[in-house]
Amino acid sequence: MIDIDQIRIDTPAAERIAYLHNAGAALMPTPVVAAKEHIDLESEIGGYAAADREASRLYSVYGSVGRLLNAAPDEIALLENATVAWQMAFYALAFRKGDRILTAEAEYAANYVAFLQVARRTGAVIEVVPSNASGELDIHALERMIDERVKLIAITWIPVNPAAAVGKIARAHGIPYLLDACQAVGQMAVDVEAIGCDMLSATGRKFLRGPRGTGFLYVRRALLQRLEPPMIDHFAAPWVSRDEYRLRDDARRFETWENNYAARLGLGAAVDYALAIGMGPIEQRCRLLADRLRGGLASVRGITIRDLGRTPGAIVSFTMDGYEADAIVSGAAAAGITIGASHPSSTRIDAEIRALPPLVRASPHYYNTEAEIDRLIGHLAGLTPR
Amino acid sequence: MIDIDQIRIDTPAAERIAYLHNAGAALMPTPVVAAKEHIDLESEIGGYAAADREASRLYSVYGSVGRLLNAAPDEIALLENATVAWQMAFYALAFRKGDRILTAEAEYAANYVAFLQVARRTGAVIEVVPSNASGELDIHALERMIDERVKLIAITWIPVNPAAAVGKIARAHGIPYLLDACQAVGQMAVDVEAIGCDMLSATGRKFLRGPRGTGFLYVRRALLQRLEPPMIDHFAAPWVSRDEYRLRDDARRFETWENNYAARLGLGAAVDYALAIGMGPIEQRCRLLADRLRGGLASVRGITIRDLGRTPGAIVSFTMDGYEADAIVSGAAAAGITIGASHPSSTRIDAEIRALPPLVRASPHYYNTEAEIDRLIGHLAGLTPR
Repeated sequence: MIDIDQIRIDTPAAERIAYLHNAGAALMPTPVVAAKEHIDLESEIGGYAAADREASRLYSVYGSVGRLLNAAPDEIALLENATVAWQMAFYALAFRKGDRILTAEAEYAANYVAFLQVARRTGAVIEVVPSNASGELDIHALERMIDERVKLIAITWIPVNPAAAVGKIARAHGIPYLLDACQAVGQMAVDVEAIGCDMLSATGRKFLRGPRGTGFLYVRRALLQRLEPPMIDHFAAPWVSRDEYRLRDDARRFETWENNYAARLGLGAAVDYALAIGMGPIEQRCRLLADRLRGGLASVRGITIRDLGRTPGAIVSFTMDGYEADAIVSGAAAAGITIGASHPSSTRIDAEIRALPPLVRASPHYYNTEAEIDRLIGHLAGLTPR
Repeated sequence: MIDIDQIRIDTPAAERIAYLHNAGAALMPTPVVAAKEHIDLESEIGGYAAADREASRLYSVYGSVGRLLNAAPDEIALLENATVAWQMAFYALAFRKGDRILTAEAEYAANYVAFLQVARRTGAVIEVVPSNASGELDIHALERMIDERVKLIAITWIPVNPAAAVGKIARAHGIPYLLDACQAVGQMAVDVEAIGCDMLSATGRKFLRGPRGTGFLYVRRALLQRLEPPMIDHFAAPWVSRDEYRLRDDARRFETWENNYAARLGLGAAVDYALAIGMGPIEQRCRLLADRLRGGLASVRGITIRDLGRTPGAIVSFTMDGYEADAIVSGAAAAGITIGASHPSSTRIDAEIRALPPLVRASPHYYNTEAEIDRLIGHLAGLTPR
């Protein structure tokens, strides 16, 4: 059981606003905010001495992230954000003309433009696996699309794709599998062994409740040694003789030397906080609150829920007749309820197939209360129908 | 004139330690430390709302960095560190077999390993311009090495290279010129027009007195439009139709969407703080203190100053007979004096040519006092000769 009272004490802002924007950037709990004290230490003894003094706490962040993902610390790289994490893996892969990159309809814009850039550079082709009737990537279609020219399967997990079923196919055929887990990590149990992905990227600021400007990359050890990072410095690859560098053995070959250590400590605190609660209970409560929200919204006149998939998570997307998504968001903000909007350009292929307008996105987390969910439902029900 | 009293009030730690490690990471003044309050705002209203609320201050950081460099705000990209800034420029350049990259003997390790990687990938060749008798890149040698196969001149400015003289040659021949200004920015006036560089990278944490995990890139507008970033996301290049992205027009095409906004505000505060004092007075005082330090060290038995160049800046490198550099550093730390060491692997070519051991590196800044300089000299003079 989650001790909601304690958790809300650790989340003081939750008493003032109904914060349902955890898929954007969640509220940080106090131990995460407290990591900013490292900046004070830097101002007291200097940035290098501060990093030295906190070296073991800083190193332990790799272990924490590893525990979160069921990976080893040396399979983890800490990066500025999830996009850079994803890029360091994706751009490390070598593609040739005719190589196929398989992705899904709901692929995130950040990744898709990178596919396009690499396709233009190399002649690789991007192929979108169709979705099934429930809106998830169609596993049978994926299976049929596999041939020896498929050099990468890269999908975004949340909201809707069957990450572990994809992993089975990728493994069976020995195809590298890159999973964007930005919206999964912190919301549900994520086990890279169970999923079978070779690379996984995620952010700190969303359901993990970490600081902005943090992200991480997991790379399976067996693949790691074969990946040369797209860009290197002397931390990733020490300069060992005049004409020679030697890549680090661990996943930190994807990092650079200089970092924001306060942010890293905040990320570590966020992971430890989540692990102390337990990813099982967190996942359970996220589903409970999201189900309550979907149930309530379904009864509000003019609202259409736009989520796909058989088991949609804690991101609830909807439209309301007669209202622009942004107007709903600002109206809710004025009523002390924080939600967000999702624009078609974020997931253009899915949005075009479904002819989606901008969507309202409400994303509860375990620290929210049933009363907050009901407050949002009540607020929307109180809008004049148009 | 610099109001040293006020500046030391803004730098409380300076009363407790003689901090002479500004070439590593300088002490931040209080307005820079105060930027961490943005993290509190994020914890109060959420990370997205906090960025929206501070949007104009966040945008003004581009203008501040532009003013610092005599560049336009749209020629500036803010990045996680100077290495990433440098990499985004360097790896954006297209090299072919036989293309020549010209660099200097004192090139920094982070950059040199990137040269090696690209040389291996593309067949480009790295050529090191020899130094002249004073240890600076020999401008005449550079001039003689220019031909139509030279596709880049990339050097590290500090300690020793004549950045503006190189710029004149680069401009005369229309060769892109990438300048690593990590140790220059914040210590002296830096004017990209006067220098004639096309790309310049720098860090926040050194003489600029900004936060760790901050850096920036300048790219001249005329070159910008021809550079495709090595990696992109939907911020750098919005996804405008299914098979098309469109690169941003400004230098932010080298950024990604998600950032550490507290760190960016700290960087902006650091630049504004430096500009308010004035880069002229800062440069003057840095030279004054460095000259005093060199003068004092020259009189200490067993010390050899290892700086090159006719006008060495505020980084004073030396060795002391019978003592390892690291032992000098830790001995000084025990006496309340913070200095650093520089290892041969940081500038391998120069270190091999001069057969350098690890060096002690003392780097005063304008906020230091003459008494602190004398304290370091006195401390070293008091060591038992070996």
